[in-house]
Formats: sequence, structure tokens, C-alpha cells
Amino acid sequence: MPELFTVLPPADALKVLLNHLPDHVRAEGISTADALDRVLAEPLSAPSSLPAFPRSTMDGYAVRAADTYGATESLPAYLSVVGEAPMGRAPELIVGPTQAAIVYTGGMLPAGADAVVMVERTQKLDAASIEVLKPVAPGENIVNVGEDVNEGEALLGPGHTLRPQDLGGLMALGITQVSVAARPRVAIVSTGDEIVSPDQQPAPGQVRDVNTYTVAGLVARAGGIPLPYGIVKDRLDDLLAAAQAGLDAADALVISAGSSVSARDLTAGVINRLGEPGVLVHGVSVKPGKPTILGVCDGKPAFGLPGNPVSAMVVAGLFLVPVLRRLQGASLASHNRVKARLTHNIASAPGREDYVQVKLINQDGALWADPVFGKSNLIYTLVKADGMLRVPLDSNGLHEGEWVEVELF
Amino acid sequence: MPELFTVLPPADALKVLLNHLPDHVRAEGISTADALDRVLAEPLSAPSSLPAFPRSTMDGYAVRAADTYGATESLPAYLSVVGEAPMGRAPELIVGPTQAAIVYTGGMLPAGADAVVMVERTQKLDAASIEVLKPVAPGENIVNVGEDVNEGEALLGPGHTLRPQDLGGLMALGITQVSVAARPRVAIVSTGDEIVSPDQQPAPGQVRDVNTYTVAGLVARAGGIPLPYGIVKDRLDDLLAAAQAGLDAADALVISAGSSVSARDLTAGVINRLGEPGVLVHGVSVKPGKPTILGVCDGKPAFGLPGNPVSAMVVAGLFLVPVLRRLQGASLASHNRVKARLTHNIASAPGREDYVQVKLINQDGALWADPVFGKSNLIYTLVKADGMLRVPLDSNGLHEGEWVEVELF
Repeated sequence: MPELFTVLPPADALKVLLNHLPDHVRAEGISTADALDRVLAEPLSAPSSLPAFPRSTMDGYAVRAADTYGATESLPAYLSVVGEAPMGRAPELIVGPTQAAIVYTGGMLPAGADAVVMVERTQKLDAASIEVLKPVAPGENIVNVGEDVNEGEALLGPGHTLRPQDLGGLMALGITQVSVAARPRVAIVSTGDEIVSPDQQPAPGQVRDVNTYTVAGLVARAGGIPLPYGIVKDRLDDLLAAAQAGLDAADALVISAGSSVSARDLTAGVINRLGEPGVLVHGVSVKPGKPTILGVCDGKPAFGLPGNPVSAMVVAGLFLVPVLRRLQGASLASHNRVKARLTHNIASAPGREDYVQVKLINQDGALWADPVFGKSNLIYTLVKADGMLRVPLDSNGLHEGEWVEVELF
Repeated sequence: MPELFTVLPPADALKVLLNHLPDHVRAEGISTADALDRVLAEPLSAPSSLPAFPRSTMDGYAVRAADTYGATESLPAYLSVVGEAPMGRAPELIVGPTQAAIVYTGGMLPAGADAVVMVERTQKLDAASIEVLKPVAPGENIVNVGEDVNEGEALLGPGHTLRPQDLGGLMALGITQVSVAARPRVAIVSTGDEIVSPDQQPAPGQVRDVNTYTVAGLVARAGGIPLPYGIVKDRLDDLLAAAQAGLDAADALVISAGSSVSARDLTAGVINRLGEPGVLVHGVSVKPGKPTILGVCDGKPAFGLPGNPVSAMVVAGLFLVPVLRRLQGASLASHNRVKARLTHNIASAPGREDYVQVKLINQDGALWADPVFGKSNLIYTLVKADGMLRVPLDSNGLHEGEWVEVELF
């Protein structure tokens, strides 16, 4: 494949990549109790109404509302107490005219009653009679059948990420099994003649592998399963073998490229050999991260990340994370952003999106974004930062005091 | 213990609880590769400098900067190329005056050189000589020893939650094992004569357990390990036995209380019997969630949550989540908030904090918070919401159009 690619803006590059991915989501059935943060793969509707019976929302007395009309502290309504509605069972008693039954919060309303008077609004005369000091309207202090959710009502749809309350809501309806998107497996291959494993003592000229671990962390946070494939030398055969093995076992491939020109060419060559159509994007107008390679190999996405740790993380955030969400059928949007004001001017060049690490500072009641300047091969510029801000494609830079949106790590 | 507690504002209630907890963090050593989202339990400093040798940040030529002074396109500097610095090894060649050596991004700078000229700023004359078209300053296009981090420099401290880049940064320095806070185990006991397991068909008057699953989800998200202890009837002996077993096996206890008065009294009695000092707070000025019980039993926190699903989730968010962070030595602050404008007035009463579920709507370029009104026993008010907003203790309510902070789920 000829290497005649133009450098694309990030949004266009992502679109090209997503357009070449299949829409199909690989689903699996799991227990709802284990489904936290998983992405739903099916539409769910309510198999029954919730609550299934009218319930009291107060401790008090179940009454016929009409019997309380006009009641005041000086002229209360007198009702005779005919018994107590038990918790967890249907009450057998019936509340007739001028009668009341003791009920507890969450208990089932006895037949005949249409409202509940809070215990605080009553006065006990003796074991069998009370005064009601304030009227209640029909339905007051009651949750009706279906008031939470009605039988057949749509609950949650495919693509929804399940939160704690969603699990509770499904359990309330007896939905104890759900179909969710399988977690995408991501093979991660590190290349570079200079790279050694973190447990090794690097010789002069060698550095320890960083990107396998930052990328694995991003994969896990995006709902995927990282599969580290180790460190491979910058030789076509070695890299091709590792990449092929990784892609066979996974749903996506990340090659954290050696940063030299020859290593980058190697990555493109490998992705082109792994399947059709191969490399789709070679170069993105983003700083840091320009030498990015994006491809699809027989339906599976493949990423050639720049070797610099900051570039690799920016590019993984821009392309790998959205693709992992897409593979799970989830929306691409992330809400994990805050607004803050810039502490310094940031220069930029139009025609390029810049990503700048910032530290967040709470000062004078406002949140400030303080740029952490540093070369893109310094991992500790990321460690010292709380998030990143984007300088848009068409901008000459951002000004001190300006409000910006910070994507939190 | 006499039940003479005054209702406390949420912030005061949390303070009372935290003041009775030990400061000690239970730590464990784990592999850095497995430490994502875990809370560091030790201060870490750099065992060596990073980088350990001067590295080129460009593909180009290592030179003596002085040899390039005054170079222009019309009057270039001529240098003889004495070889290539290999990747992953210390170069053996030395760059003398008017000499240059080929270097790649990330490669080690050869002795004698003090700067790198980008390949784009040179012209090749033959295999052994180049023209340099622009001068470079000493140190240009180089990362110096310790420029990322210096030997002995403080890296990260106890209480820091490890992010993807932190793992990468530690691996870069060969820190492959870290001491992190053990994940706090939280025993969850559901009580209520009306509660049945989600896999059962409830009879009239019965409802399925919801709170075990919402609380378990919140515990997991806060870094804890939920230990569900099942559903217990509202009988002192049964509840005490389950709570005792749970607390023995865990670092914290949650009793999701039956919502009747008698069940609440039962919870307080159990917490008082489990250890000293027992119940510390009985009632919090928050809506929903007033009948909250907070205690400490021989150094372990114990929570009596209201039975209503919304109340239980609000109270767990206000007290259980901060306590779980504290047990891990982490800061109590959370950043997961967005600013939005209110679509409707919200009424409130001073002297009480109100929590209102909202849906976030993107409209006219602004984010709007649309209240999801519903009784606190309706789990689907939570399912339909994206987050919660707080109406402060001293407020009469919030106005349509007002900017509010929404804590995202």
C-alpha cells in the first residue's frame, strides 16, 4: 500500500477509523450483581409494575380520606382502629367507613383505605381509637401500583453503562441476568531496540517500558481487558509475529512504536500485512501525537502509537478509548470534565489541536488550570498533572484568565 | 445507651464519625501493574534519575552547538558525519569539532555532542558530510539527565489514587511493587420482614432487595469490596447475629434498615451491642435520609441506612463513600462534578440539606439540570437521573436558570 496519506485533524481521523469498524457488538450474559460499569447490550423493559401493590410511605394510619375532611386540632375526626397491617404480607383486614388501620412505611395498604395519615398528625385516645388532627387527600402518603415503573415500560437501552442504582432498579424487578457487551480485549505490543522490561536494570542507552502500563490502565478504565504482549525488537519479522499473535487473541491491537522513523515505518508495514484495509490514517494534526497510525485489519482496529509517553497517552485517549466504547456499543461522550480558568497564556499554531497537561488549583473560590509544561517524552509531566486541556484546531492559543474545559485523568 | 441524640447537619455528622475512626491505614504490597485505582500507602521517591543519560528528542544529527553558530541556508555549516548512534546502546563514537553523528529520537547522545540538529534542518552532501542550515543552541533537542525526574525527588505520596500515567511513571523508574491501602471490606446486611431476594417472586406485601446492590455498587466504586450478608428478618437476635458475623469479617458494616420505626430502633440497638462507642449519630438533617444511624464499634464504622432506595443511596454517598476513602488514607474530595443551569425552581426548607436527582440536558450550547421529581422510595427516579444536586442547609430553594453543581453518578 503506497504511503500517500495526508495528515488528518483528530475528529476526521477518528471518523475514518470508526467508519471502517463493524457495528456488531459482541454480547455475553452475566449476573446483574456482577454488571457494575458494564455496557448493556439489550433493551430492557419492566416485566411487572413497581410497586406491585399500593404502599404506605409513612408510619401512621391507613384511612378513607373522606373520613378526615375538615379535621382540625380543635375539631378532630374520630376513627376506630381495627388492627395493624403487617409488613411483608397482604393485610387481611378491611378499612371500612370511620375506621383506621396501623401501617408502617413500605407496608401494603389494606383494602378499603385510600390514604395514610402520618402518626404525628394523630392522637391516640385508647387502644382502639384515634383522633385525626389534619385531613388527608385520597392517595396521600401512598405510592400507587406502577408509580415507580409500569409493566412494559422501557427501562434502559443498549449502550447504557450500568451504575449502582441501575443494578438496584433491575433487581427490584427480578432482572437478575443481563446481556452486556463483552469487554474488548486489547493486545499491547511495545517495540523499540532501546526498551527493556521495568524489572530490568537498563544499560546506558536503554529505558524501561512505560507505554504498556499507561495504555493498559486506559484500556481497563474504558472497560477493556489489556493483554500485554511484551517488548519486541525493531525487526519486521519479530514485530509481525507478536502483532499477529496479539490480534488473533484480541479484539484490538496497540503497537507502541519505537519513536525513530524506521520504527514507525515498521509499524505501518506490520498493520498493512495484518489484514484489509490496513493503515487508514498515517499522521494526525495533533500535538503531541502527530506520528499516529490508525488502521483496521479484517474488522479489528489497530493503533500505532508514538513512543513518547505523553504522546502515547494523548493519542490513546483520542482514538483508542472512543473505539473501545464503540466496540461496547456505548456512546463516545465522556462527562469527566471540569471548567477552570487558565493561569498562563498558552501559545499554539492554527491547523493543529494541542493538548496541554494542567494541574488544578483551588484558589479564591475558583478552580484554576495551571499548565504543566514539559516535553512530550517526560512521563512525569503527566504524573504531575490532574488533566488535559485542548487548544482547538483553529486557535492561535489561549489567554490567561480564560475559561477552559479540562478533561480529568 | 440512651437514645438522646440531636439531629446533626451532614457535615457535622460526618466529622463526628471520622473523629471516632482510627487513623491507621491497612496496607498491602502488590505489583505496580495491578495497582490501577488503588490508593498509595507509602511515599515514593525516585531511586535514580530519569532519563539516566542525555537523549535526543529528534531524528537528526548530534553536534557541537558552537559549530552551527551563524549557519543559514545561504551560508550553511559543513560537518563531517562520523557514524550513527545506535538505539539501545551507548554510542562508542565521539563527536569532535566540525563533526556530527546520526541520532534517532530517544537515542543516547554521543560523547562530545551537546545538541541535536533536526534532520529537516540539514542537507546531505554525501555519505560522510552534511550542511546545517540553521544554528542550534547547546541543549537544544535534547532531554538532559534528570530532566524528567531527579534521583531522590518525591514522586507520589500516601493517599494518592494511582492513575494510568502513575503506573507508567513508576515502571519507568523500576518501581514494580508498591504498598497500597487494602481495599476495605464492607459487610452489607439487608433487614426487613417485607424484603425478599431478587430471584424470588414476591408475594403481595413483599418487595425485592434493592439496597444491597446499590450499596455494593457504591462500595466497589469507592475502592471497597462489598460482602453481601443477605436478608434478615426484623428480629433482634437474627439481625445481631448477621451484623456480628459481617463486622467480624469486614472493615465496615452497613445495615440497610427496614423502614419502620421498630426496625430503625432495632438497627440502633444492634450497633450499640456490637462494640464501643456504638451509635454516634441518630438522625441527620438531610432530605431524603433523615433517619440515618452512624456509629463506630470497636474501631469499625457501622451505618444504619434508611430503607428507601433513594435515601439509602444519598446517605451512602454522604457518609459511607467518604469513610471508605478515609480507610484507604485518601482525600475525601471528589472531582466528579459538572456545572449546569436549573430548568425549574426547587423549593426547600432552611435547616436541612436537600438532595435532588437531575437529568442533564444539552441545549442551546449549555448544560441544563432538569430535576427528576419523585418520592424517595422510587428507585427509578435514580435510574432516570444523571446526578444529584445539593440544596444547601441555609437555603430556601434554588431558582430556575441558576447555576448549580451536579455530582455525577
